[in-house]
Order: sequence, then structure tokens, then C-alpha cells
Amino acid sequence: STPKFTESLVWLGRFLGAGICIGAGALGPAIGAGHVGDGTMEAMARQPELVGTMTIRMLLAQAVCGTTGLYSLLITLLILFAI
Amino acid sequence: STPKFTESLVWLGRFLGAGICIGAGALGPAIGAGHVGDGTMEAMARQPELVGTMTIRMLLAQAVCGTTGLYSLLITLLILFAI
Amino acid sequence: STPKFTESLVWLGRFLGAGICIGAGALGPAIGAGHVGDGTMEAMARQPELVGTMTIRMLLAQAVCGTTGLYSLLITLLILFAI
Amino acid sequence: STPKFTESLVWLGRFLGAGICIGAGALGPAIGAGHVGDGTMEAMARQPELVGTMTIRMLLAQAVCGTTGLYSLLITLLILFAI
Amino acid sequence: STPKFTESLVWLGRFLGAGICIGAGALGPAIGAGHVGDGTMEAMARQPELVGTMTIRMLLAQAVCGTTGLYSLLITLLILFAI
Repeated sequence: STPKFTESLVWLGRFLGAGICIGAGALGPAIGAGHVGDGTMEAMARQPELVGTMTIRMLLAQAVCGTTGLYSLLITLLILFAI
Repeated sequence: STPKFTESLVWLGRFLGAGICIGAGALGPAIGAGHVGDGTMEAMARQPELVGTMTIRMLLAQAVCGTTGLYSLLITLLILFAI
Repeated sequence: STPKFTESLVWLGRFLGAGICIGAGALGPAIGAGHVGDGTMEAMARQPELVGTMTIRMLLAQAVCGTTGLYSLLITLLILFAI
Repeated sequence: STPKFTESLVWLGRFLGAGICIGAGALGPAIGAGHVGDGTMEAMARQPELVGTMTIRMLLAQAVCGTTGLYSLLITLLILFAI
Repeated sequence: STPKFTESLVWLGRFLGAGICIGAGALGPAIGAGHVGDGTMEAMARQPELVGTMTIRMLLAQAVCGTTGLYSLLITLLILFAI
């Protein structure tokens, strides 16, 4: 059936909020993880025998970068499905 | 003929969404591809005999940067013409 | 009870303003503190005997980066609870 | 005379669109041209005898950065005066 | 007395415009001045005998960065008080 005007306003806010939330929230972690990868490549070029060790540290640092993205994903899912 | 008010709201959202989508979506790939080009130039200055090899890797890395731009382009076209 | 339309407009502005305020205000200090940490790591690699001294200076510089975040937090709390 | 409501909506969109268009469109070229200038200064410090040659290349690269600013200026003028 | 609806719309635009104007306008000069300071610190480390000379040039470059912030401040004050 046709939604009421008041329901539509809620969905308008829901979709805008979810879009801003995951849109902006996915921006930072990706840039941060890119910085980590950038530094890792230079580091590997200088100490090639540490490639294995550095790969694990790179993934660790990128996981830290990714945490705020997970916050955004969580809030986005809550906005869309739970509240 | 004059569009109805409800149709106009849909087109308002469509144009705003398409503009944000491709506007922001074209920002990142270009910056990313610029970083790749920046590093490539420095790399070529240090290893001039690898210019050909590096050009191909540069284009490969820039193509990866461009994928999210293609996502944005696809969604923009869908917003404007398909849904 | 159901809020009046005029009260709702005020709350609409209040939530949007608070979200923009702390959202954008938390962006800068984190990036700035990240730059400080970036430089500190490189500095420690070059002068390992100064790690303790540099840690204190790093925290000092990051505290300066954090001041604008505190401004944003203050204004956000004022928007939400005080005015 | 007082503009009609429908005319006002058009002007609202026109001014918002023009402001976003040239505001965001003037951001990128300036940052890009700044990166070019940054690299040029470092390059001149390393090869001072090439200052004249580098100045011309710097302006060439900055002109490329400026093209998207010209697109934005063109669209802004079209939004404000032509359509 | 209670403002009329039409006056309220003008003030809505005035406050949003002033906030965007000085908010975004204060972003760039600060980042630019930060880049100048970053380069100055590295330069001082390489040529410590030029600290005094570099300080003046740093302030000169940062003043140039600050000009667009002054434009924004001027326009913001005009939006709020003069027009």
C-alpha cells in the first residue's frame, strides 16, 4: 500500500543517513590502509629479507585502519534494519 | 506536459543522487591514479632502463584505482536511466 | 506526547548540526595526529636512542592536534544538551 | 516584482548548484597545481641549472591541473547565465 | 516578536551559508600552513644556521596560505551582518 507521509520522511532520513554513514565511513579506512601499503612497499624495498614479517605487520596495521569502517558498517545496518 | 509534484520529487532525488554519485566517485580514482603516476615518475628516474616495464605496471595499478570509478559510473547510469 | 511541528524542526537542526559538528570535527585531529605519528616513526628509526624523548614530544604534538576536536566535542554537547 | 514560488525554486537550485560547482571545482586544480609547485621546488634545488626549463614544464603541468577548473567555471557560468 | 516565515528562510540560508563559508574556508589555509611548517622543519634540520631566515620565509608563505581564509572570513561577516 502507499506509505503515509510521515513514514516516508522516516525512510528519507534512513536512506540519507545510511548512505552518508557507509559512504564517508568507507573513505577513511581505505585511505589509511593505502598509506600503510605505501609505507610497506618502501620498507620491503629496503629490507627484502623481511617481506614475510612486514606482510603480517601490514595486515595488522590495515586491520586497525579498518575498525572505523566496521563501526560505520554496523551503524549503517542498524539504521537500515534494526531501528 | 507539466510533471506531477510526486514525479518531480523523484527526479529531484535522481539528479541529486546521480550528481553526488559520479561527482564523489570520480574524485577518488583520479587522486589514486595520480599517486601511482607520482611514484612511477620517481621510480623511472631511479631505474631508467625499466621505463617500459614500469609503464605497464603503472597502467595496471591505475586500472585498479579506476574500478571504483566504474562502479560509480554504473550506479549513476542506473539511477538516471534504468530505475 | 507527540512533539509539535516547530519542536521537530528544532530537533532536526540539532541532530544534523551535532552530527556534522563532531563528524567533521573528529576528522581533522585524527589525520593530524596520524601525520605526527608518521613523522615520529621515521624519526625514531633514525635516532633510536631518543625514543623516550620523542614519545613525549609526539604526545605533545598530538595533543595540539586534538584541541580542535575538543572544540567540536564541546560545541556538539552544547548543541545537544545545553541550548 | 515579487518572483513566483516556482521561479524561486529554480533560482535556489541555480545558486546552490553554481556554488557547489565552482567551489568544489576550484579546490582540485589548486591542490594539484600546489603539488606540481612542490615537486618543482625540490627539483630546482637538485638541478639549479635547469630552473628555466623547469619553470616552463611546471606551468605546463599546472595548466593541465587547471583544465578541470575551467570545466567548472564554464558549467557555473552556464548554470547562472545561459540555461 | 515572532519572525515571519519568509524572514526565517532568509536567516536559515544566512546561517547555513556562513557556516559552510567559514567552515570550509578555514580548512584550506590551515592545511596549507601546515605543509609550509612541515617543509620548514625539515629545511631547518638540514641548514640550522638559516633558522632565522627560514622563519621569516615560513611566515611569509603561511600568510599567502591565509589569504583565502581572510576572503572566507570577509564573506562570512558580510553574510551575517552586512547584506
